Order: sequence, then structure tokens, then C-alpha cells
Amino acid sequence: MAKAAASRGIEIIEGGSATSPRGFVAGAVYAGIKAAGRSKLDLGILASDQPAAVAAMFTRNTVKGDAVLVSQEHARNSTARALVVNAGISNVANGARGRRDAEEMCMLAAAKLRVGAADVLVGSTGVIGRPLPMDKIRAGIPRIKLGPDGGHDFARAIMTTDTHPKTMAVGFRAGGRGYTIGAVAKGVGMIHPDMATMFCFVTTDAAVERRFLRRAFRVAVGDSLNMISVDGDTSTSDTAIVLANGAAGGPAIGAGSPAAAAFERALRHVCTAMAKMLARDGEGAEKLIEVRIEGAATDKEARAAARTVTASPLVKTAVHGNDPNWGRLMMAVGRSGARVDLAQARVWLGNTMVYRGKPLPFDEAAASDELRREEVLLRVNLGAGRASATAWGCDMTPEYVHINSDYTT
Amino acid sequence: MAKAAASRGIEIIEGGSATSPRGFVAGAVYAGIKAAGRSKLDLGILASDQPAAVAAMFTRNTVKGDAVLVSQEHARNSTARALVVNAGISNVANGARGRRDAEEMCMLAAAKLRVGAADVLVGSTGVIGRPLPMDKIRAGIPRIKLGPDGGHDFARAIMTTDTHPKTMAVGFRAGGRGYTIGAVAKGVGMIHPDMATMFCFVTTDAAVERRFLRRAFRVAVGDSLNMISVDGDTSTSDTAIVLANGAAGGPAIGAGSPAAAAFERALRHVCTAMAKMLARDGEGAEKLIEVRIEGAATDKEARAAARTVTASPLVKTAVHGNDPNWGRLMMAVGRSGARVDLAQARVWLGNTMVYRGKPLPFDEAAASDELRREEVLLRVNLGAGRASATAWGCDMTPEYVHINSDYTT
Repeated sequence: MAKAAASRGIEIIEGGSATSPRGFVAGAVYAGIKAAGRSKLDLGILASDQPAAVAAMFTRNTVKGDAVLVSQEHARNSTARALVVNAGISNVANGARGRRDAEEMCMLAAAKLRVGAADVLVGSTGVIGRPLPMDKIRAGIPRIKLGPDGGHDFARAIMTTDTHPKTMAVGFRAGGRGYTIGAVAKGVGMIHPDMATMFCFVTTDAAVERRFLRRAFRVAVGDSLNMISVDGDTSTSDTAIVLANGAAGGPAIGAGSPAAAAFERALRHVCTAMAKMLARDGEGAEKLIEVRIEGAATDKEARAAARTVTASPLVKTAVHGNDPNWGRLMMAVGRSGARVDLAQARVWLGNTMVYRGKPLPFDEAAASDELRREEVLLRVNLGAGRASATAWGCDMTPEYVHINSDYTT
Repeated sequence: MAKAAASRGIEIIEGGSATSPRGFVAGAVYAGIKAAGRSKLDLGILASDQPAAVAAMFTRNTVKGDAVLVSQEHARNSTARALVVNAGISNVANGARGRRDAEEMCMLAAAKLRVGAADVLVGSTGVIGRPLPMDKIRAGIPRIKLGPDGGHDFARAIMTTDTHPKTMAVGFRAGGRGYTIGAVAKGVGMIHPDMATMFCFVTTDAAVERRFLRRAFRVAVGDSLNMISVDGDTSTSDTAIVLANGAAGGPAIGAGSPAAAAFERALRHVCTAMAKMLARDGEGAEKLIEVRIEGAATDKEARAAARTVTASPLVKTAVHGNDPNWGRLMMAVGRSGARVDLAQARVWLGNTMVYRGKPLPFDEAAASDELRREEVLLRVNLGAGRASATAWGCDMTPEYVHINSDYTT
């Protein structure tokens, strides 16, 4: 995927981060919200020197964190200047004070940056149902040192149980001009096990029309972050935000611009790469699973089938055990509600076809080897139409259960 | 539950089975479909001496086993005489021969019983994508000895990876007459790990009008078997069937009958008891989890919230670890799409209230003890209305992953 995209004019920036695009700065401190430990940063700011066009997508969980609710409001403005994010406590279900605390975080960051509080978006990730230690946040925000190299510290500050920070940047050229897109995300891990909360923040120095940015981001997120699953449990805090500050110069990219296609391609590349990083680092996971559904009657059914396979405990455990038990794939696509024509359907484990209208004889050892890879491909043609979709997940291991059943509160 | 229901005129028949109601016989043999082992029965017949009113419900998985497809057709007739069931191979996704084999199983049982093939329903459970060994089934069916004590053998014959057979019977009186309802079900286990396929077969000697039987069964199954989850993966072979043969005499029970309410109550009692037996025996499970949702805006939302909690890996692992991490309950009810008013919501772990519009201080050791029971009660009032629902599941253990990732094919 990375190489294919790179061949289409997208260049991976080695050591890149969310502050690789021009005009972005970031920084982080350890405020004492997380238990002191390996990753001693838990409060960060990512800011643009100038107002940036903003597009944002949030969790569809009906129980939303207060940071999500405040950011939703602030993202309705045409531009934004900064994100302030803490890890360790997610500020969900804290009663009336949750809302006040989320707003105060924006105000504290806004005062530091000398911008309006409504220009700041906020994220909180970690345990549900504990109040934010606002004294620590009030003391911490002024201590954050912002700089163009701060993207990596910011990536560490938003981690909860991730095993490593996730950040990257790519460059691309369009219309004779060079642009950069950076991104930072967090997934799940093992320091303070709680729910899987997903953040993905994307920055770019491209000037982008807000409407086009929102549509392009919705499409890119829809095919990337919205197609990963670690355990099927949707967080109360999922947040994806893109900021486009125009520091690269040139006219704003819109639907008809010469640079539109290149921008969309690069944005999709970054979102997909971040999504795969999150899935691969799923709690306890040892493998990345890529599920390709073809031959679906509709796009919606293709997506549902792909996501259901990635979320199926029986598929995830079979992959963990290198068990070429393809019947579980059949069960999962059928459970999704997608139409399946069993007489036309085809199933592959990696490159080994195991079903074509009926079970095929296959070399079980070879099929098992297909599952023994670090990246496992599962492919099903539903035989019901022409729509397709790809989703990513990870295997389920005994470690997943250990991580999430350890007594931690 | 059992005692409450028992006080309303329902009497548990000790050692009861699906052949406790008058006029039912059953039997089973080891045909060699399952690997020889601990439970050496794998092919059984349950039959009524006289035509029985029939109601049946099948999996909504779009990939259906051929036994399901054949039984769906046969259940459209007003009466049925028998079920023939094998375990070890589920006869799903076997191409054109799957259908022929399912029909031949009905014909073989029909020939033995001297009834029409369309009067026989068929069930197959086990591995997907392997053909039925029809030579063994042709040799096995004539060897089955049917008798009024055969219910327990039949219960053993339909097990795949269940750790124990699941069967029962209750008696109740209505309109001066005594009636019996028997049942047999299978869930999941550890002999030949594959997908969770659910069977529940109910027998009664009551004479019941077919339309009333279908409605009463739909309601009873909807609140019992359709409210359990072991791993969220819907089988391709789920089948629930009730046969009412009228051997107890008296007029057929219909919507307006004096016996209608007592019959519905007893049917619901049996279905609920069987559902809880299945959930408790979930693969690797150590605990039964009962989830009660109250204060939902609609019945549909109450059911969705209850089922989502029972299927959430994060809730299931927290219960396994006795971790009073109630935030995961909040996440799960929100993920279901049910409306939640956080300012009005209440959450209990067992009898310990942990949230009431905001987090409450609670004794963590006591709350942990509530999760340390064999039957764990989780209760959430969504604060959004008056609807309620109850669902059952089980904890997720490392053993669940071991069972399902062992290389078995």
C-alpha cells in the first residue's frame, strides 16, 4: 500500500510528524494525569501559526465525552488554531463538571496562544468516569514549550496504552507546488487498560477550501479509520481532525483545482497508514489482518461484511492459531447481513483459494502458513454484485484478555 | 427465575427431558460423524406419535446451512412428526450436494418412522464446509432405537463442544388439565472447536392452535434465546423448534383459551431456562452475566443496549477480572445506539450503585465482590424512557481464546 501510493507521487518524509507541514508547532509536558511511568508525557498542544481550515469527525457512540461535545461545537467554525489533548482520563460521564473542565482546557490553551477559546479543539482519553485533575492541567499548560519539532512529543503525550507513538508525514507536489501532510494518532495498549479510544489528528500546509476539505476528509476517514476494529467496542471519545493552514502558499485547493486529486490521494494515504498502525498495535495483537470483500451487492454491504469479519472473535482467534478454518469467514460475512450467493462465492486465505461455489481441496499446511504472516490477507467474493471494501483488524490473543481483565481501578 | 416462575404454577420435573411430554419418543446412536471420544452419540431422532403443530425460528445469518433451508420449508406445513439431527458437521457451504444430503436425511428418518419426508425437520451442527458422511448416516439412522426415555440420549447426540447436555421439562395445570413442556438445546464447548451453533427443540403434549403456537414461541424466543450472546457471532445453523402434539387431550389452546396465559408462561420459563444454560456454558466461560436495561426510550433500544453489553469484549473481560470498571458499561450502551441521558442515568454492579447522574463514591472491594459471583448482575437505567430488557452472556477468559485458536482442522 505504502509503496503503491508512493509511486503515485507521494513521498514518505522520514522522521515526519504532525509538525512537518509548515506553520505547525507542538509540545507536551508530563502534568501528572497518567501514573508516572515509561511514557512521561500526558498533556500536549498542537497549534497552527495562522487560522487553519478545519474538518472533524467524532464518535457515533450516543454516550460522548465532554471533550467531544465541546470540539464538535468549535469545529463548526470555519477555522481553528489549535488542539489541546490530555491522556490518562477521558472526561466522560463526569456530570456537569465534565463540560466545564473541557471548556476550561480550551480557555487555558487559548490564553497561552493568545487566540479565542472557540478556536481551540480539545481531546481527552483514558479512564471513563473520573474527573480531570484541573489543578494539574492549569499548572501544566503554561509549561508546554511549543516548537516545530514538537510533533513527536505530542505523539507520545496522547498515548494511553499504545505500545509506541504513531505519527508520520508525506510530501506531494501538485500544480508546481510542494505540499506536506502530517498526522498523529493513538490506539490501544497496556499501561492503564481501559477502553479503546481513537484519536487521529492530521495537519497540512496546503490551503484547502473548507467544504472540499470536509468532503475529502469524510471520504478518507470513511475508508481508513472507520474500517478498523480492535475489539468491536466503539469509544466515547473517537476524534479525527484535519487542520489545513495554507502555509505552503498558492490558491486554496477546491473541488475543481488541479491539485485536488493529488491532495485527496495523499490524505487517503496518510489516513490509511495511520489506521493500519492503530490496528496492528491493537491490544495484545500479534498480526495485522486485512479483509478484502469483493462481489458485494452494494458498497454498504461490502463495508458491513468487511467490518464484521475484522470484529469477529471466531475469525480473530482462528487467525491467531493459524487455523485455516474458512467457514468462520462465511459465518461472519453472513452475519453482517450482506447478501451472499454461495454458488458464486469465492474465498481466499492469503493467495490460497479454499472455496469456489463449493469447498475446494487445498493444502492445509500452505493455507496455515498464509495465516502465519505478520500481515494476513483474508479475501471473500460474495458473488452478489460488484461492490468492494477493505477493512483492517488484528488477531485476538490470550494477552488481549489478560490486558483487559487485570484488576486496574 | 426458576423459583419465581415455579410459584406461579410451574413445576420443574426432575430428570425431565424433551420426551417427558406424552407421545414423544427419541433415540440416538454414534454414527462416526464426530471424532470418537467422550460423548459418543452424534445422530438422533426426536419424534411425536401423532402429527404435532409446529413453530420454528431460524438464524438470520444470510449464509444459512442446508438443514436450515430444508427445515424452513418443512416447517411451513401445519404439522410435523419428527426431527433428525446430527452433530460434528454442520452441512453449510457444501455446494449443491449440501441440499441433497439434508433432504436425504429427512427421507431416511421418514422411512424409519413411516411418515412423509416433508413431516421431518433436520438439523446439522459442527464444522462448516465439510460434506456430511452420508454412508455413515444411512447406516446410522436404522440403528436408532426410539423410546419415551430417549430424551437424554438425544440431548447428548446434538452436543458439539458443550460441556454437558442441556435438557429439562416442566409441568403446569390449566383448565383442570395437566400439561408438560420439554426442551433440549445445545450451545458451545471444547471437543471440536468451531462456530457457536445454537439448537433448541421444545416439545409439549398440549394441543395448541398453530397460529397461537407460532406467536407464543416467537415472543418466548425473542425474550430468551434471542437475548443471549457468547461471542457476538451469529451461527449459520441456529434453529428453534416447538412441537405440540396434543397428547394431553382437551381442546386446542388458542389466543382466547383459559389455558393460554399458563401455556405462554410455561413456554417462556422453559425457553429462558434453556437460554441461560447455553450462556452459562459459553466457551471458556466461568460466569453467567445477566444484563438488565431499564429506562430506555423504546423496547428496541432496551434490547439493543442489553445485547451490546453482553457482547462487549471489554465488559466481558472486566467481569472476568472482577474489575468494577463501570465506564465500559456506559461505552457499551452508548455503542448500541440507544439514547442515554447521562444526567438521569444510573448504573449498578450487582446491588452496588456506582453512577447516578455522575460518578458515585463506592466501595471498590464490595463492587469487585459483586463481580466475583457465578451469576453477575449488571444493571443500567438509561434515563431516557420506560422500556426495559434483559439479556444473558458470559465472561471472556483466556480459555476462550485458547479453545478457538487451537489448530483443529
